[in-house]
Amino acid sequence: MNIGVIGLGLIGGSVALSFRKYFSKVEIWGQDASANHMEEALDLGLVTRKLHPKDWIQMDGIVIAIPVDATAKLLPEVLDAISNRTWVMDMGSTKEAIVQAVENHPKRAQFVAAHPIAGTEFSGPKAASEGLFSKKVMLLCDTQNTDSQRLQQVIGILNRFEMRIISMDASSHDLHVAYVSHLSHVSSFMLGQTVLDMEKNREAIVELAGSGFASTVRLAKSSAAMWAPIFLENKTHVLNALHEYIAHLNTFASALEQNDRTVLLELMHKANEIKPILEGMTQNGNPIQ
Amino acid sequence: MNIGVIGLGLIGGSVALSFRKYFSKVEIWGQDASANHMEEALDLGLVTRKLHPKDWIQMDGIVIAIPVDATAKLLPEVLDAISNRTWVMDMGSTKEAIVQAVENHPKRAQFVAAHPIAGTEFSGPKAASEGLFSKKVMLLCDTQNTDSQRLQQVIGILNRFEMRIISMDASSHDLHVAYVSHLSHVSSFMLGQTVLDMEKNREAIVELAGSGFASTVRLAKSSAAMWAPIFLENKTHVLNALHEYIAHLNTFASALEQNDRTVLLELMHKANEIKPILEGMTQNGNPIQ
Repeated sequence: MNIGVIGLGLIGGSVALSFRKYFSKVEIWGQDASANHMEEALDLGLVTRKLHPKDWIQMDGIVIAIPVDATAKLLPEVLDAISNRTWVMDMGSTKEAIVQAVENHPKRAQFVAAHPIAGTEFSGPKAASEGLFSKKVMLLCDTQNTDSQRLQQVIGILNRFEMRIISMDASSHDLHVAYVSHLSHVSSFMLGQTVLDMEKNREAIVELAGSGFASTVRLAKSSAAMWAPIFLENKTHVLNALHEYIAHLNTFASALEQNDRTVLLELMHKANEIKPILEGMTQNGNPIQ
Repeated sequence: MNIGVIGLGLIGGSVALSFRKYFSKVEIWGQDASANHMEEALDLGLVTRKLHPKDWIQMDGIVIAIPVDATAKLLPEVLDAISNRTWVMDMGSTKEAIVQAVENHPKRAQFVAAHPIAGTEFSGPKAASEGLFSKKVMLLCDTQNTDSQRLQQVIGILNRFEMRIISMDASSHDLHVAYVSHLSHVSSFMLGQTVLDMEKNREAIVELAGSGFASTVRLAKSSAAMWAPIFLENKTHVLNALHEYIAHLNTFASALEQNDRTVLLELMHKANEIKPILEGMTQNGNPIQ
């Protein structure tokens, strides 16, 4: 089996390693816009051969793991070039713009729109790990637009990767992830920046901060190059989520301003209802770090 | 040695267990406003005897681990009642109001104002653990107002607990922790509530959220009863921090609104500078969860 991986960062690199772990007869071809990453991926043994657009036609399957705006641009070209038996899957954190980019493509049915609920705040080929996807959720979107043979091939692979598959349409996907993922990233990026701006004594942060701080700003380490396109592609939902968040913070600030202990307690008790949800995530095997 | 612990939750319970772990000849007396917690603490073996105000005079040392507003009220009464050789230490997350409450007390010199940079999002006697303080930082405030004998006794105990001691004045303490701790809690509480308010389908949160969400909302599980007084006692600094945070979120929202990729990237790259700080915390042995 010949698998092409386009984009050899955390996600693409982990896809490559998962293929090597779960399949014996597989050759992984890789391609990356960065010559450094390409070389690193070969050195680390993530991939064995360099993939060029002229090779796409030879692949049994191609996984695209590059920023979401680049995916929407590249995907039609990949579909143009592949054989009739090739499947193509993307790994983007937004889905609507990507499925729209190929909605009228003659090979649309060979494409599976996917989003793994897996990742870390690290990036690049060195961040890849063969266990990243095991027991995690893979969201597949608009699967009615993929032909059943291609879909079954991809599902077979994801099952081997030990992933749990959830299907949904691309537009509700983008709405939900704005709240449960993208908003967390904005809140963490801006919390990190606020503390850096206000606390000029960086040694004091190192000395005085505890696990709570580390936990809330962890995502501020995430790749800006990956996240800018996600926010821009999911702009409407992210802005709604962000304005709601700011409104909640303003409510809290007013209650504090007015020494209104009752409202403060109410707000926090309501937030405490997140507890059973986080416990449900742990039971589900979702990643809690 | 007779040690009294007032407040048998996560922190007070862990203090009791630490004394039992690191000292052989020690009797731990405990008291808690909740009859349930009192009973639980006895059942779990955190303490061996029930402490009453009439017993305070017999103690070699008393640790107060109750909400910060209750500490400011109770501390003068405790100082009134103790013997001349007793030391008293509080564990509150704000320090200015507490030191002010006893600044003119005749036994002020027997008091050590302390704040352990240790904790979890759990609460109550069952959350206590004997390892909570090991390798963590203990902030001691305004130590020039404690007599050297009492201070040395307390430092000796904290050394046995394997804690790293940092001294600072109470007012800079409250300013710094507003940024590196209290703001994280507000951001997490309100993020939890925003997602709960907007995402009516709670099953979707469980299914779709990943480690990033879990990490940023973890603190939303924290005890409201403990945190309301902290926010109120440190109101000025917390409000400043919160308004700065909201301003940063608004800057991000405007850039997104205007599709300004350059500014978005700039904001995130700046936030990325938190990376070496989080690495410094890990090297310091500060708790990263």
